[in-house]
Amino acid sequence: MKKIAVIGAGLIGSSILRALKNKNKSLELVVIEKNLDHLRKSKELELASTFKENIDNDIEDCDVIFICTPLSSYEEIFLNLDKLELKNSIITDVGSAKTKVIKIAEKNLNQKVFVPGHPIAGTEKSGPQSGFKELFENRWFISTPCKLSNDISLEKINNIWKSFGSNIQIMDAKDHDSIMAITSHIPHLIAYNIVGTASELEEDLKSEVIKFSASGFRDFTRIAASDPTMWRDILLDNQEEILSLLSKFNQDLKELEGAIKNKDGKFLFEKFKKTKMIREKIIESGQD
Amino acid sequence: MKKIAVIGAGLIGSSILRALKNKNKSLELVVIEKNLDHLRKSKELELASTFKENIDNDIEDCDVIFICTPLSSYEEIFLNLDKLELKNSIITDVGSAKTKVIKIAEKNLNQKVFVPGHPIAGTEKSGPQSGFKELFENRWFISTPCKLSNDISLEKINNIWKSFGSNIQIMDAKDHDSIMAITSHIPHLIAYNIVGTASELEEDLKSEVIKFSASGFRDFTRIAASDPTMWRDILLDNQEEILSLLSKFNQDLKELEGAIKNKDGKFLFEKFKKTKMIREKIIESGQD
Repeated sequence: MKKIAVIGAGLIGSSILRALKNKNKSLELVVIEKNLDHLRKSKELELASTFKENIDNDIEDCDVIFICTPLSSYEEIFLNLDKLELKNSIITDVGSAKTKVIKIAEKNLNQKVFVPGHPIAGTEKSGPQSGFKELFENRWFISTPCKLSNDISLEKINNIWKSFGSNIQIMDAKDHDSIMAITSHIPHLIAYNIVGTASELEEDLKSEVIKFSASGFRDFTRIAASDPTMWRDILLDNQEEILSLLSKFNQDLKELEGAIKNKDGKFLFEKFKKTKMIREKIIESGQD
Repeated sequence: MKKIAVIGAGLIGSSILRALKNKNKSLELVVIEKNLDHLRKSKELELASTFKENIDNDIEDCDVIFICTPLSSYEEIFLNLDKLELKNSIITDVGSAKTKVIKIAEKNLNQKVFVPGHPIAGTEKSGPQSGFKELFENRWFISTPCKLSNDISLEKINNIWKSFGSNIQIMDAKDHDSIMAITSHIPHLIAYNIVGTASELEEDLKSEVIKFSASGFRDFTRIAASDPTMWRDILLDNQEEILSLLSKFNQDLKELEGAIKNKDGKFLFEKFKKTKMIREKIIESGQD
């Protein structure tokens, strides 16, 4: 591995650049970033040796090309990559909705190698200044190989993430999208929603609701501070799984609401005891 | 102030004991705790000098009696306190649903002084071993005075919390209950709910959903690990405000769901940008 390009130097892209540089000082790194503010910051932070605004044939000799931009930019990126004479490059990505990504990739990439992936790591911060080289340590990296992948390219990409300290899981794209819908996408949607409802109450009460936000709400507002563009794209691109599981979530919430209405303390207690045990499983698995 | 009793030595009660001891070593402290396991742990931790299973006339000369038990135990506690010949004692509490607490207090306490209160602080842990003396530092303490309160008793209780490092806010009980419904009670309810929905998906997919729970979901499971008895009681006792705001929450969520269905990216982006700004307000106010 001699040369790697990273398209998009936000939280994830800049963390990949840092982790790559940390593992192999002699690696040639290229940043491609449309946001000129982020491009300038990436230069200041010396995240790579080459900095570009657009995709061009300078990256044709890259071993790996990482796509780390919001999902709405993928189609254009794939079209631009497809025009290149890639020598031996593996294209890979870090997007959070894999079925849609694979669909766009298979439609737009011809005779290119693509390994879809998703590191389950992140913070609510955005931009090149927010990344750090340890972001992926002890976190999961999920590969969802598609028709454009092959065993060698899959292994190469997985090995890069292993070198970042991640645990690797290979998974069907649809299963990935279901799991992410419930453990990440719907929690974000709900966090955005409840912070919105609270801010309306603030206007109603003419009081400062927000300032009393210790405990539960603080966590929700932290989640709701994530990048709006990224989350808009994820919610639209994993539409099907999100709507299906949201309907399940709404049914379950109706049950809890009914128990509160009917003062059914036994139901509530049993439900809460069960979820407490799930938390204990997470702590055991070291993901807390 | 010479002698203080704390009924219930869980996370909050034991933190109050630690904070009191820290401020005034010569204070005489009494723990009353029905849970024998917690009572034994409180002794081991030397949280007080006297340890009792039940309320009795030994505490009649206390300056302050803190109630730090689940809300379902309040009626019995008030009945027992009402039988005592309290000399100059202020009864106070830390419960999360004030309208209901005041109703029970005014019904059961005769010629006693009661100052209802609520420290906006906590963790998902429970039991006497989980408390710490700094828990209330830079957090809000909300007083919601009632017919059984008076200016002197209110000031005395507020001053104790000031000495713990809390910021004091006096508020109408109903406003308190609305604010807590949206910033604490509904977030907990939803956290319990989504962890439940996820564990059912885990059974459906025969896959380990839980282990991929970085980001959003981890925070939800942390919240959902809170004490089931306490939360059952809170949800039942703040029933009215919770159901009313939950209906608002459901309406707002329907709107977001509609935007996902209709692929209305503009609506989602604007909504998410707004909530991101709310988070920034919380960081400014130092409550993050």
